[in-house]
Amino acid sequence: MNERLVTLRPRYGEVDSMGVVYHPHYLVYFEVGRTEWMRAAGCAYADLERRGVRLAVVDAAVRYLQPARYDEELRLVTRVTQIGGASVTFSYELRGPAGLLATGHTRLGCLDSDNRPARLPPDARDRLGRGIRPGPLPSESP
Amino acid sequence: MNERLVTLRPRYGEVDSMGVVYHPHYLVYFEVGRTEWMRAAGCAYADLERRGVRLAVVDAAVRYLQPARYDEELRLVTRVTQIGGASVTFSYELRGPAGLLATGHTRLGCLDSDNRPARLPPDARDRLGRGIRPGPLPSESP
Amino acid sequence: MNERLVTLRPRYGEVDSMGVVYHPHYLVYFEVGRTEWMRAAGCAYADLERRGVRLAVVDAAVRYLQPARYDEELRLVTRVTQIGGASVTFSYELRGPAGLLATGHTRLGCLDSDNRPARLPPDARDRLGRGIRPGPLPSESP
Amino acid sequence: MNERLVTLRPRYGEVDSMGVVYHPHYLVYFEVGRTEWMRAAGCAYADLERRGVRLAVVDAAVRYLQPARYDEELRLVTRVTQIGGASVTFSYELRGPAGLLATGHTRLGCLDSDNRPARLPPDARDRLGRGIRPGPLPSESP
Repeated sequence: MNERLVTLRPRYGEVDSMGVVYHPHYLVYFEVGRTEWMRAAGCAYADLERRGVRLAVVDAAVRYLQPARYDEELRLVTRVTQIGGASVTFSYELRGPAGLLATGHTRLGCLDSDNRPARLPPDARDRLGRGIRPGPLPSESP
Repeated sequence: MNERLVTLRPRYGEVDSMGVVYHPHYLVYFEVGRTEWMRAAGCAYADLERRGVRLAVVDAAVRYLQPARYDEELRLVTRVTQIGGASVTFSYELRGPAGLLATGHTRLGCLDSDNRPARLPPDARDRLGRGIRPGPLPSESP
Repeated sequence: MNERLVTLRPRYGEVDSMGVVYHPHYLVYFEVGRTEWMRAAGCAYADLERRGVRLAVVDAAVRYLQPARYDEELRLVTRVTQIGGASVTFSYELRGPAGLLATGHTRLGCLDSDNRPARLPPDARDRLGRGIRPGPLPSESP
Repeated sequence: MNERLVTLRPRYGEVDSMGVVYHPHYLVYFEVGRTEWMRAAGCAYADLERRGVRLAVVDAAVRYLQPARYDEELRLVTRVTQIGGASVTFSYELRGPAGLLATGHTRLGCLDSDNRPARLPPDARDRLGRGIRPGPLPSESP
C-alpha cells in the first residue's frame, strides 16, 4: 500500500470563468487524495486529530500542465514520497481524459493539540512510511 | 447605527464558468457584511467567540435578481431586522453598477462553547438590537 | 426516477473553526445532488450547457437543523418538486449519523447562451418533470 | 511601481477547524494581491480578458511559516520578480501581527482567447516588467 487512486469530478463552483478548474482547488483535490490515502493506510486523519495529533501543510507546490474541466472524471494518484521524524511529504498526479493535468506535492509537519511542532507518533510514522517510493518527486520530473 | 455598507469586489475564483459570481458565495458576502456590521456596533464576532458565545446560521435565504460580475465594485447593505432572546436576523441588499443584484437574510441562533443553544448575553443583545428597522424583510419585498 | 441519493464526506476545508461544515457549502452540496439527479435523468447539466441552455439559481433557502462534521458520511436526497415553462425547483434533505441535518430548495431559471430568460427545451422539461412529488417543500415542513 | 501592498482579513469560512486559514486560500489571497498589483500598474486583469488575453497559473508554490487567523488584519506584499515573452512571475509575502506568515510565487502563462499559448501584448509586458526586483524569489530565501 503506497499508491492510492481516487476519482473525482470538478464541481460547478470549482470552475472559473475560463471554464477550467480554478487553480487553488488543486490543493483541495490533493487533500481529498491524501485523506483517502491515510484512511486506506489505517491512519485516518480524523482519528489522528481525535488523538491530539495534527498535520499542517508547511510547503505546497503545483505544476499545472493542462486544464481540468467541469464534470469530467479525473483520476488522482497520491503517494508518500518522503518521511521524517516530524514531517511527511505526499506527492500527487492528476489525470483527465487528455492525460496528465497536474503534479504537485505537499509537506506536512506534525503538531500537538496546542499547535506546537511534535514528533509523529510511532504507529502513524510506521503506517505513513510503508513503501516509500524512491526517485524524484513527480512535480520535479515533467 | 443600524445599517452598514461595505464594498467588495468579486474575486476571480468566486466567478463560475457563466462569468458570474457562483451562487453560494452570496452567503459568504453576507457574512462579510454581518462581520463588519457587528464590528461597527462594538460587538465584533471574534470577541464574542473569545467569550465562548457563538452564532450559528439556522436559516438562510437568497433571491438572485441580476448577476454579479468579476471585479466590479459591489455595495452590500446589512441590517438587523429581528432580534429575540436567543437569535438575531440580519438582512442584506447587494447592489452593483446595474442596480439591485440580490436580497437575502440569515437567522443566527446563539450557542455556548459546547454548541448548545443559549441566550444572547445582555450586552450583545442590546448592541445587536439597537435601531431595528421595522417592516418586511428585504427578501420578501421584491 | 424522481428521488436521487448521493453520499458525500465533508472535506477538511469545508469545515469552519466551530468544527462544523461552513453554512454556504450546503448550497455546494445541493448542487452536487442536483448534478447527479440530472445525470441520472438523462439530462446532464454539462450536456445542456453544450446546447446553449443554462440554469441559473434564482432563489435558494436552507434550514440548518444539526451540524454536519468533517469526514462523516452524509446522505443527500434530491427531488424535483416544481416545474414550470421556464424554471424548475429542486428540494434537498441532508442526513448524517445523527439524523436530518438540513433541508432546502433552489429554484433555477432557464437562460439562453446570452443569459436571457428562456423556455426550458421540451425534452429537458419532460425529463425534469417526470414524477414530481406532490406536497410541501421539505424546507417548509420541519 | 513594483511592490504593492494590500490588507485583508481572513473570512470566517476561510478558517479551518484548527482555527487557522485553510492552506489553499493563500493562493486566493495571492490572486487578490496580483489583481491589485495589476490594477495599480494600469494593466487590470479584467481589461486584459476583455482584449482576449488570459493569464493562467502554470506553477505555484507556498511556504507556510506561521498560521494566519480569522479576522486579523494581514498585509500582503506582491512583486513581479520575473518576466519573459509569454509568462510573468509574481512573488508574495504575507505578514500578520506575529510577523511573516507565508511566502510564495505563481508563474502565469499568457493564453489567447482559445486558451492557446501566446506572447504577452507589448504594452502589457511593458507595464508588468517595469521595475523587476532583482535577487532570489522570497519563497527561496527563508
